[in-house]
Amino acid sequence: MTAELKPIAHRCKHYADLAALSREIATLTAVSSLVGWDQETYMPESGAAGRAEQLSLLSGIAHERKTAARYGELLAACEQDATLNVPGTVEAANIRELRRDYDLATKLPTSLVSELARTTSLAQDAWKHARAKSDFPAFAPLLSQVLDLTRRKAECYGIPSFASPAGGSPRKGELYDALLGEYEPGISAAEIETIFTPLQGRLSRLVAEITASSTQPSASCTELGMSVDQQHALALDVLKAMGFDLAAGRLDRTAHPFCSGMGPGDTRLTTRYTSASFLEPLASTLHEMGHGLYEQGLPKFESFGLPVADAVSLGIHESQSRMWENFVGRSQEFCSFLLPHVQRHFGAAASGLTARALFEASNTVERSFIRVESDEATYNLHIMLRFGIERELISGRLAVKDLPGEWNARFKALLGLDVPSDAKGCLQDVHWSFGLIGYFPTYTLGNLYAAQIWETINARIPDLAQRIGRGDFAPLLAFLRENIHQHGRRYSATELCARITGKPLSADPLMRYLEGKLRPLYRI
Amino acid sequence: MTAELKPIAHRCKHYADLAALSREIATLTAVSSLVGWDQETYMPESGAAGRAEQLSLLSGIAHERKTAARYGELLAACEQDATLNVPGTVEAANIRELRRDYDLATKLPTSLVSELARTTSLAQDAWKHARAKSDFPAFAPLLSQVLDLTRRKAECYGIPSFASPAGGSPRKGELYDALLGEYEPGISAAEIETIFTPLQGRLSRLVAEITASSTQPSASCTELGMSVDQQHALALDVLKAMGFDLAAGRLDRTAHPFCSGMGPGDTRLTTRYTSASFLEPLASTLHEMGHGLYEQGLPKFESFGLPVADAVSLGIHESQSRMWENFVGRSQEFCSFLLPHVQRHFGAAASGLTARALFEASNTVERSFIRVESDEATYNLHIMLRFGIERELISGRLAVKDLPGEWNARFKALLGLDVPSDAKGCLQDVHWSFGLIGYFPTYTLGNLYAAQIWETINARIPDLAQRIGRGDFAPLLAFLRENIHQHGRRYSATELCARITGKPLSADPLMRYLEGKLRPLYRI
Repeated sequence: MTAELKPIAHRCKHYADLAALSREIATLTAVSSLVGWDQETYMPESGAAGRAEQLSLLSGIAHERKTAARYGELLAACEQDATLNVPGTVEAANIRELRRDYDLATKLPTSLVSELARTTSLAQDAWKHARAKSDFPAFAPLLSQVLDLTRRKAECYGIPSFASPAGGSPRKGELYDALLGEYEPGISAAEIETIFTPLQGRLSRLVAEITASSTQPSASCTELGMSVDQQHALALDVLKAMGFDLAAGRLDRTAHPFCSGMGPGDTRLTTRYTSASFLEPLASTLHEMGHGLYEQGLPKFESFGLPVADAVSLGIHESQSRMWENFVGRSQEFCSFLLPHVQRHFGAAASGLTARALFEASNTVERSFIRVESDEATYNLHIMLRFGIERELISGRLAVKDLPGEWNARFKALLGLDVPSDAKGCLQDVHWSFGLIGYFPTYTLGNLYAAQIWETINARIPDLAQRIGRGDFAPLLAFLRENIHQHGRRYSATELCARITGKPLSADPLMRYLEGKLRPLYRI
Repeated sequence: MTAELKPIAHRCKHYADLAALSREIATLTAVSSLVGWDQETYMPESGAAGRAEQLSLLSGIAHERKTAARYGELLAACEQDATLNVPGTVEAANIRELRRDYDLATKLPTSLVSELARTTSLAQDAWKHARAKSDFPAFAPLLSQVLDLTRRKAECYGIPSFASPAGGSPRKGELYDALLGEYEPGISAAEIETIFTPLQGRLSRLVAEITASSTQPSASCTELGMSVDQQHALALDVLKAMGFDLAAGRLDRTAHPFCSGMGPGDTRLTTRYTSASFLEPLASTLHEMGHGLYEQGLPKFESFGLPVADAVSLGIHESQSRMWENFVGRSQEFCSFLLPHVQRHFGAAASGLTARALFEASNTVERSFIRVESDEATYNLHIMLRFGIERELISGRLAVKDLPGEWNARFKALLGLDVPSDAKGCLQDVHWSFGLIGYFPTYTLGNLYAAQIWETINARIPDLAQRIGRGDFAPLLAFLRENIHQHGRRYSATELCARITGKPLSADPLMRYLEGKLRPLYRI
């Protein structure tokens, strides 16, 4: 990667022109990301009103350009040019994906886009207040409006068809699939269900055994009162050791951690530090770093604006964050690597800590109400609950007024707990108020992709665990760069998985990974 | 000031539409400011290439909108609407100033704008290297190109005419006046010369007497090794006490201090801290705060995008920074206010410090080579040198190859020193490489405006000095808010000065101020 942003040159003029327009749109999007990042990090509070106007103007200009007639004409010219559409070439992949983006952008009437923007803005506010008071009825009317508009959006996109695995005639999907396609192109709800259903049974049984075990590791040994400055210095050290390029990125503090890949050479992570354990904030930093390593590995200096420089799907993005957070960051070997860093930054108070204690603290499993606080074993059950519910909300089989009851019944069935309040139940997540429906399953898809790819990596790099123990993360990063990051959207998530692992996505690797780690730890 | 950004509503549709377009342009400019601020503060170094593309795209979109036919049509419709052009109304002022902006934007052919952008970008780089090696010939060819393009720009603007003070027929100005108009609308080089020439003689005599005095205060008592964190905490305390709203602004660290008023409720200052004296960095912070208080006082929440929410001129902007930095910040009373803050933040090491010692340290006068390091008495001599030279460069009476010799001869005549190198001479400032010609005199105009307004303020608030000593800055800020800040570009700088002080701009107040402070201090 060089610090020079290469112009997109191509022998074919309409392709080069299309790429130049596309780069302008990506540049505007990068500006929006920076403006949004600043809002969460350094913007003074009185700047909020002006900031909203800035973001709205930028997205308006970007949308205008994304749907411009000239853009459509260049795209059509490229599609009709046989020399540009040789299967397997980068050009063919870029044209295919630019068409997808153009269709998504132009299929929505502007009136629907602005109605969605207006309604979700109101819904976010209503949600915030409703959650604070655990008052579902205060949120219900806006949620209904958001759902109506989201259904209309899905209808504009149209119900997709999916190739039959057996090679027969394509199978028509459902309305929810149109939404899913925004986040995880090419996958259907039916396919997800096929994977989720058996996984759910296996996870539930594992969690039940863990809960019943007399061995219960604790995280209290990591509650050492490390200061925010100490935690930040530790985090920067770990990021650097793991390969995150701090000359092309940053780490700042925000209320909610996120990663923003805002353009060539500029990928920003945020995290939050708590005063109790340093371990949970560090895990959250590693999660965002996983996203950030993907962003830094995309060929943005060469192809910024073209789909090959974009992440392929949310599921694959999440596979990267989960791999570094969990598969690496909660391993025994990583804890061995981490221990001296913790002791260096934390001095005497950490002298009694051991790598084993860190490992146990990193892997406590407990049934709990809040998704974002849950552990590796229970996490996916929280997702399955949401996937089932939002699919029914979109199909109309579940009415908004019945949502809390349905949530609580399913929660009891899946996690065995009685939800004490809607704030700890169906009001806990921000996603639906944003109109993000079809988004949740990508979290579990990410875990599944991570596990399946992790098995392949360990087969290809047999001493990977020992290398991690020595702080040698380079071979892992090189594998991800070569097999995932550099391709951007050249291959679909499904193709990428098959190319790397030789198999379609399955729940087996995730279960093998969880059982392999947790059974010995909990002596079950 | 509320945190709500009011929509611009008006009974007259073409006026409201024009205001809405103008607000969009201002919003884009605010985004550019944020993007530029980030580049100087938090952008990782590898982000530079992408950042240049972002800034160039944003300025291109803004320029497109500034020169759009629709914008010109709405403006013309407003000009033809008699109900909008009642003299003295805000509407009439806005239309007058929007016309000025539109003409400035449309008079330049796009080819010239991009050639200037390209050439000054190269010139900045060449200047940086030439200054480092004190190698004027390495910069000369690019400076010649910048001057040629700047002359072409001035020709596109056209030579302005100025009302004769005696009321006779308007007097035609010179090419340099067209450039001056970008920064200090309405003033001519001839008028500046009329003020500068006698001021120069009086300043030179004062500086000569000071230099010859046997009493020479020193700043060494402030070299206490205050840490960066201590200095930053002190600066924030002082900003707050003086009325800078930190909920609508920030203070960060950069290589070169600046103030960026980037939109409603968001005004950002930057500063740099040195490890020697804490006084010079603090003065620099107060300078930027002066700019920032002006930005915070503009009616941006009510009229963002309209000229009445913009600063009137660089000279008036500079008058605000100089007033807080010098007239307030280098006064005996301010030092009394400051002392306990310094001692609180700095502890035992500052226990021997007195308000008198701070006052003396704040007012050392010394002939030196570098403008930005010079004191209140010599500073304006540095500016007069540059004003004289750039005026001759534009008229063609001075050739680029003769610049170093001319600079050094004038410097010897003005400041009595032999310039040891071009790096300490004609290569020291960044301005000309940016194509900023006609900008320098606004620094001294700022000092003159500040002094003249300062006399009026002290006459209206007779106990101002004592109030400052008690840390009560509110009456001063209220005066500036009422008489300057709230008006934006409603009145010209000249009108504003006359409205406040009842007199045209004169050098007398500045001389009275400097002599009144420095003669007793230097016992002359």
